[in-house]
Amino acid sequence: MLENITSPTLLVDQSKVNRNVQRMADRALRHNLTLRPHFKTHQSGEVGEWVRSFGVNSITVTSLRMAREFAQCGWEDITIAMPLNPRELPGIGELAQQVYLSVFLVDPETAGKLSKEIAKQIGYFIELDAGYGRSGVKIENLNLIAAIIEAAGNHHCRGFYVHSGHTYEAGDKQEIDQIHEGLMRKIANLKSGLSRLAGTHPSGPVRTRLAQTFEFAIGDTPACSTQESFNHITSIGPGNFVYYDLVQAGLGACSTDDIAVCLAAPVVQVLPHKNQAIVHAGWVQLGKDRLPDGTHGRVVKLKEDGSWSASLADCVVLKLSQEHGTLQLTTEVLQELSPGDLLGILPVHACATVHGMRATGEQLIIAAPGD
Amino acid sequence: MLENITSPTLLVDQSKVNRNVQRMADRALRHNLTLRPHFKTHQSGEVGEWVRSFGVNSITVTSLRMAREFAQCGWEDITIAMPLNPRELPGIGELAQQVYLSVFLVDPETAGKLSKEIAKQIGYFIELDAGYGRSGVKIENLNLIAAIIEAAGNHHCRGFYVHSGHTYEAGDKQEIDQIHEGLMRKIANLKSGLSRLAGTHPSGPVRTRLAQTFEFAIGDTPACSTQESFNHITSIGPGNFVYYDLVQAGLGACSTDDIAVCLAAPVVQVLPHKNQAIVHAGWVQLGKDRLPDGTHGRVVKLKEDGSWSASLADCVVLKLSQEHGTLQLTTEVLQELSPGDLLGILPVHACATVHGMRATGEQLIIAAPGD
Repeated sequence: MLENITSPTLLVDQSKVNRNVQRMADRALRHNLTLRPHFKTHQSGEVGEWVRSFGVNSITVTSLRMAREFAQCGWEDITIAMPLNPRELPGIGELAQQVYLSVFLVDPETAGKLSKEIAKQIGYFIELDAGYGRSGVKIENLNLIAAIIEAAGNHHCRGFYVHSGHTYEAGDKQEIDQIHEGLMRKIANLKSGLSRLAGTHPSGPVRTRLAQTFEFAIGDTPACSTQESFNHITSIGPGNFVYYDLVQAGLGACSTDDIAVCLAAPVVQVLPHKNQAIVHAGWVQLGKDRLPDGTHGRVVKLKEDGSWSASLADCVVLKLSQEHGTLQLTTEVLQELSPGDLLGILPVHACATVHGMRATGEQLIIAAPGD
Repeated sequence: MLENITSPTLLVDQSKVNRNVQRMADRALRHNLTLRPHFKTHQSGEVGEWVRSFGVNSITVTSLRMAREFAQCGWEDITIAMPLNPRELPGIGELAQQVYLSVFLVDPETAGKLSKEIAKQIGYFIELDAGYGRSGVKIENLNLIAAIIEAAGNHHCRGFYVHSGHTYEAGDKQEIDQIHEGLMRKIANLKSGLSRLAGTHPSGPVRTRLAQTFEFAIGDTPACSTQESFNHITSIGPGNFVYYDLVQAGLGACSTDDIAVCLAAPVVQVLPHKNQAIVHAGWVQLGKDRLPDGTHGRVVKLKEDGSWSASLADCVVLKLSQEHGTLQLTTEVLQELSPGDLLGILPVHACATVHGMRATGEQLIIAAPGD
């Protein structure tokens, strides 16, 4: 297979993807959770089909554009995980004719526009901020939650969604545990608060809507991958877990061996006097993320069947420019290296690598070692 | 025009592009330099035509893929500015049947393969490293230069190319001046060395080739934009100058008003309690680069004709995730802001913004204010 690769090429190890999805599906089953995976990481119709084969039938995406792409792939329950952009209401109304579409609401003003401008019932989640500090309603703000539900009229409140993005900044698994446990307490409080409000809210229709059964969803891959206590959580929407990457391995969300994508990078210059090689692989192909040690990836050897070795000791991606990568290698690796050889690079952040490779129009090769 | 924008959209101000290209074309004319612009920044057939209208007829690209794209747009003199990847020799041979293709050589081994595997004469530049420390032959290494020329056989050595990428890390204009002046001295030495070698090299054909007139080319936008002394330099290959960005403005290579691209970002949440707003614009749309102050861009107001204001005081892009951006704004700007409004973002690094937007398949709108 390797001899067909002439330019930077993203290898996807199907058996690792299947293993990663299987593990997450098992975890969901074990805890009675709906798995509604986020498709922003792979953005691939084909990889989406592999995920579907594990019984998944509802998905999360980032944008209306991505929702349209996956609607075309036959997905019928799609949630756009970004506060609703009022400018997209016409497009959302149109797509809602074809699929069961859900959006995120974070304020009564936009909820009111949704109610007024889209007649066909769609679903929505109220996005909650439980400490990440990005988008969403503060999880303690019950009045604002009730105001959104009131303003959204007859659209269907499916529940609440929390993306604890700060688990990505955690130093280790223990810190992820702490963030997750804090969130579980906050969701328990929210649930009591909603029950109380269902009895006391002045508006009859709002009381009825508050009395229904809600979903409580979380989305961050680190918590979804590591936690075993989900309490009131009813669904999970991780994205990165299909491929994982070096950041997730660093957090303990996966092992390095679980990383299911690898960039095949052609060597274009060998610089023995400084133990370096230049490859055709820059931030265009890999993204600009860095590991805590400042490097941009780890180096592996590629095998003829498209699989790859464990990461080579002391071999790192030192620097990236637009399409050049500078690798720092050992004398051992360098002495058998020539221009035209291929090396593999494990990505720091798979989402960025996949997005960058989409823009180059380069080949994506599905490797299924052992098949 | 703004009412047609529903999702993140890259605005290109054609009048600013024309002004930037005119200025660079004037500089080239003034110093008797060939302008061979690098098309990696815009990667657009349409913008390429604007550049062509200034009399440009030879261009630089990063990859064989990009060379193919611009060959399809009718460009006939294309240089691939990356050490030749031996795996691409068949593709290079094929494209060389249609256009005058030039490549970069950095070692005799690959030069020998080129000579052996491609019969039709193509051009090449020897890439030199004059202190950047990335790819290329060390500028002092005359023996290696001669060995490459010998190994490349009858292919046409057009000359030498230096990308002083370290000007991007310069603190200010004075540091760029120092790097450039150092380079001018090194090129003068190289030129004397080549003359000497043309008289003494043991191989007759190599002596003949060394006696010809060579191009001496530089590529970094900071030096190309700011220097007025080019000595032995005969051609310049800047890329970023068509659009410029906040990094270039910080280096003094342009003014903020020269920046010719701006991302129109829909506001999806307003957070008055912390003077922030969330926009649909993340690292997918903007790239992950940061300014020295750690922020990811500056905020402007968009005008109805697609142009934009000067950057708003104390309004910055604080954080980016995949498609969410967190803006830190002033109370003044916030008080008139609602979800569904558009704000403009000036990019830190235009090459990354343009590349990211290519992958989303979002609209690119050519704004030509005043036309």
